[in-house]
This record gives sequence, C-alpha cells and structure tokens, in this order.
Amino acid sequence: MSLICVGSMAYDAIETPFGKRDRIVGGAAVYAAYAASNFIKPINLVSIIGNDFEESEIRALEEKGASFEGVERVKDKKSFFWSGKYHLDMNTRDTLVTDLNVLADFKPVIPASFQDSEFLMLGNLHPATQISVIGQMKIRPRLIAMDTMNYWISSAMQDLTTLLGMVDVLMVNDAEARELTGEYSLVKAARKIMQMGPRYLVIKKGEHGALLFHGSQVFFAPALPLEEVFDPTGAGDTFAGGFMGHLARTKDISFENMKTAIIVGSAMASFCVEKFGPERLKEIDKNEIDDRIRQFIDLVNFDIALV
Amino acid sequence: MSLICVGSMAYDAIETPFGKRDRIVGGAAVYAAYAASNFIKPINLVSIIGNDFEESEIRALEEKGASFEGVERVKDKKSFFWSGKYHLDMNTRDTLVTDLNVLADFKPVIPASFQDSEFLMLGNLHPATQISVIGQMKIRPRLIAMDTMNYWISSAMQDLTTLLGMVDVLMVNDAEARELTGEYSLVKAARKIMQMGPRYLVIKKGEHGALLFHGSQVFFAPALPLEEVFDPTGAGDTFAGGFMGHLARTKDISFENMKTAIIVGSAMASFCVEKFGPERLKEIDKNEIDDRIRQFIDLVNFDIALV
Repeated sequence: MSLICVGSMAYDAIETPFGKRDRIVGGAAVYAAYAASNFIKPINLVSIIGNDFEESEIRALEEKGASFEGVERVKDKKSFFWSGKYHLDMNTRDTLVTDLNVLADFKPVIPASFQDSEFLMLGNLHPATQISVIGQMKIRPRLIAMDTMNYWISSAMQDLTTLLGMVDVLMVNDAEARELTGEYSLVKAARKIMQMGPRYLVIKKGEHGALLFHGSQVFFAPALPLEEVFDPTGAGDTFAGGFMGHLARTKDISFENMKTAIIVGSAMASFCVEKFGPERLKEIDKNEIDDRIRQFIDLVNFDIALV
Repeated sequence: MSLICVGSMAYDAIETPFGKRDRIVGGAAVYAAYAASNFIKPINLVSIIGNDFEESEIRALEEKGASFEGVERVKDKKSFFWSGKYHLDMNTRDTLVTDLNVLADFKPVIPASFQDSEFLMLGNLHPATQISVIGQMKIRPRLIAMDTMNYWISSAMQDLTTLLGMVDVLMVNDAEARELTGEYSLVKAARKIMQMGPRYLVIKKGEHGALLFHGSQVFFAPALPLEEVFDPTGAGDTFAGGFMGHLARTKDISFENMKTAIIVGSAMASFCVEKFGPERLKEIDKNEIDDRIRQFIDLVNFDIALV
C-alpha cells in the first residue's frame, strides 16, 4: 500500500517580507513527499534531478521513507530552478526566474516495483506527461489525484481535457477553477469541472481555506489563522501530500474520509508556511501534527440546537 | 429580554452585475432588525427617518417585532440615502452617492421603555454618537456589541478609543482590523484590538467567512458557498443581527455560545445576499433557517481519529 508522487524536484530562490533564501530545496514532489511521509511509507517518487541536487537532500528524503528508484539523475544538467518574490499580502508573487533545466526533458518512467501503488498523485506538469504516467500503470490505481496550473489551461487544454477524464480528484486554486470553466461562482465552476471527469474537486483558496466538492456535497476546511505566514512556497503541494498521505494510510476513499484528508492537508500546509521552503516540514513530529489537528477541530467545532 | 439596535435606516440605490434597484429600503438597523427578529422580540430600534420613509416599510418591520418608539421621524427632511455599484467579484464596490439627510442631525434618544434591554447593538455611526447611547443606559446592558468603519478609524480615533474601552464585542471586517492596528496579520491585529477593550472580536471576511477571537481562543465560520452572490449590501449588518438575536434568545454570552451565534449570523447573511437589499430576509421562515444552519453543520463537520 504505497503512494506514487510524480512532480518536480527543484531548487528555489525565495524572497518574502521576512527574509530570503538564495537556494533552498523545493519542487512539488519534495513538498508532497515530506508531508505524506508522516502517514505512509514508502513514498514512491517519480521525478528528475540534475547534477547539483545534493546527496544530503536525497538522504533526508530517503530517511523519511522516500524511494528514489523512479527519480532520473542527469549528469550534465542542473535541476529545475525557480525564483520568486512575495508581497506583503502573500497572496501574490512575482516569478523572477524559471530555469526548466532537466525538467525540459522529463519523460517519467514508472519502475516495476511501483506498479502495486494504489494511490497516485500527479503534480503539476504538462498534461501529456501526466497522461503518460497513468498509461504506464498496469493496474489502475484506486485513486488518481492531479494538480495543474493556469499555464496548461491556456496552452494545453486538449490534453488537459483528456487527462481530466482519467482522474478521480482535481486539486486547483480558485483562480484556476475559474479559468478552467469561465465561471466566477466556485459552485458553478465545481459543477462544470466534475462534468469534465473528476468525481472529487478540491479548490484551494490559500489563507482562506479549501473546498471539497463531490456531487452535490460540499465541505470546507479553513486555513489555520497564523501570526505570520513566513513563506507560502509549497503550501499547495504540502496540502496535496497530506491529503494523499491520509487517504493512503486509511485506505478509505469515501467522501467522509476525504473531509478528514482535507483537514490533514490543511494542517500540513499550516506547518509549511511557518519557515522557508520545506524547513519546517523536515522537523515536525507526530505529536506536533496531532496538536495541530486538534487546533483545527477547535477552530470549527460548535454545538447548536436548532431554534 | 430584548435587543436594542442602533443604526441607520435608509434608502439605497444598488447596482450589481445581476441588475439594479433605484430605491430599496436599507440601513444597518433595518438589516439587523430583520435578521434578529427571527430569534427575539421586540427589536428596539433607535434610529432616524425622513418624510420619505414609507409607512409600509414601518409596518413590515413592526410585524416582525420591531418597536419604533426610539425612531425619530423628521417631517421636513429625507431619509439617509446611499448609492453603490458592485463589480464582478462582489468584494469591491464604488460608492456613488452618500446623502446623509436626517442622519446628519442624529442624536439618538433611548426611550424609558428600552432601559431594560440586556443586549445592545451599536451599528456604524460616529463613535461619539455610539458613546452617547451607552451613556444613556441606566443599567449597563449585559452585552454591548459595536460596528465601525474605516472612516471613523481615520477621522475619530480618539472617540473610537474611548468607545472600544466600553464595549464587549467589536465587529469589523479584515481591512478595518488591519487599519485599526497597523498589523497585517489578523492574529496580531486581534490581540491588539482586544487590548483596546473588547473581550470578543469578530472579523468579517465576506465570502471568506468570519473569525471570532476571545483571549487566546479562535473560532472560524465559513461563508456558505453560493451559486451566486446576488447583492452583498447589508450582509455584515444581517450577520450582526443574527449574531445578537441568537445571543439575546439564548441569554448565554459564553464563548461556546458565541461560536453558535457566529454560525447563525453567517446563515442569516447567506440569505441576505440571495436577493436585492433585505428582500430575501423579509420572506424567510424558521424552516428555511433550520435547513440553512444544517448546511453549515454539513459544511464543516468532520470525524477524525488522530494518527
């Protein structure tokens, strides 16, 4: 019972109102793996790295239960590099540099030993690349979740439409849900997206929480009110990792359990933003996670006798 | 056991992406009264109206349990008039016209028969006016809640500071909480505001829900995801009316019960935005309110066994 995480492994340069890091490990698969590793092992990584990816970072992930069998190592190129700067409200960021490097040639290959994985998380990549991963699975995973971004919505809508018909869960942010459907109302957008394929839809709203849609049902998880959001980089991927990690651990893909998975994902994301990059995710333990989840229960729990 | 609502009674002209109304009843006290009337009677209104305020609107409010004994009627002037236009995202609006009319001379007088009211809601007015109301209460109400706005924060901060030391609950939106404290983080802003006086703080975030702070405790209520927000005018005042109405009905001002009051307020606000002005509030009944509150329970309720 394991989880495949397909996605980028990278180095980032990040500037926020609280400081900067010139070079820190990042990428969707890294964040998702750190988050999911608290719930399930192994995390079967499918990614590509360059000659600059440090052995210490590989060992740190392996110690958390990540398998690198599906990670291609390219000797003569550098890892994917992204640089961005956040403004005071942390909801907007400017991308300063995007050097695809090894990611430009990424042709994911699923190792034979990953074939029994029942849970598949497709991080943001070209939809055709995401499709090729699903095509390599000899037995369809019980649950396939995917992320995407506005760039693919505007440039690869045909592949994206095909892909949406193949997955169970789509995770996007509110702007992407609107762009994908042309609907401003998230309720209307959700209905259209579920008609495109995914039975479950997660709409991430950053500091404003996340919505889970399934048929006519809807669930809302708040973001934890924090003193400071130090660095939001990777929060969405961390959310996805916590979500999939909880589902893989419990082996229960009902709507009821997905609600809980959304809370777990939100809890993991609330750790992610407390330090730069995945620094905070590297250090948390089970007790801290339990405490954090209790804070979410307190945050939304109320008693009511109907009038 | 009754509730005093102090605030404007007005006519509004409203334009949204879904249509327009050239003249529709409005004002903080009107919205709060319609919302609170589902939970408590009488609603002791303290306001001022002009010669254009229609008898049919007065009768409609009286039928819901509003007392007009504290409403001054001015024969030779018109009622407060506000005109605004909303944009597609409904979070921003342009104020086109603000004719204070009778509101310019508003000197609220609390009738003797209102003196036994245990709950006092001070709608947005000059802080000195709000102070004068508290000063007229021979016995301090059990709970005093107040609203304010950015205009008073920038122009009447001295009176506002005095007032904040006299109330139990402050209700503001996120921008106002930030402006009042100079803190971007709502958690930090909340701490500073509670040091200014109010033991309870409600931060309204529109479509993103509302936060309740008390000491080191925090509670979050989402807004109901709606197909369309038709007209957000009055949603904040409706929220306040539902909140105070629930507290006055249950006579319980504990933090636990305030959580429930926040949900009730959110439910009432979710009705308000479904039609123009208070049109939807005028027609809802107990069964619809119960159904709506059940939707809020479903929206946030989850089960979790800690890992």
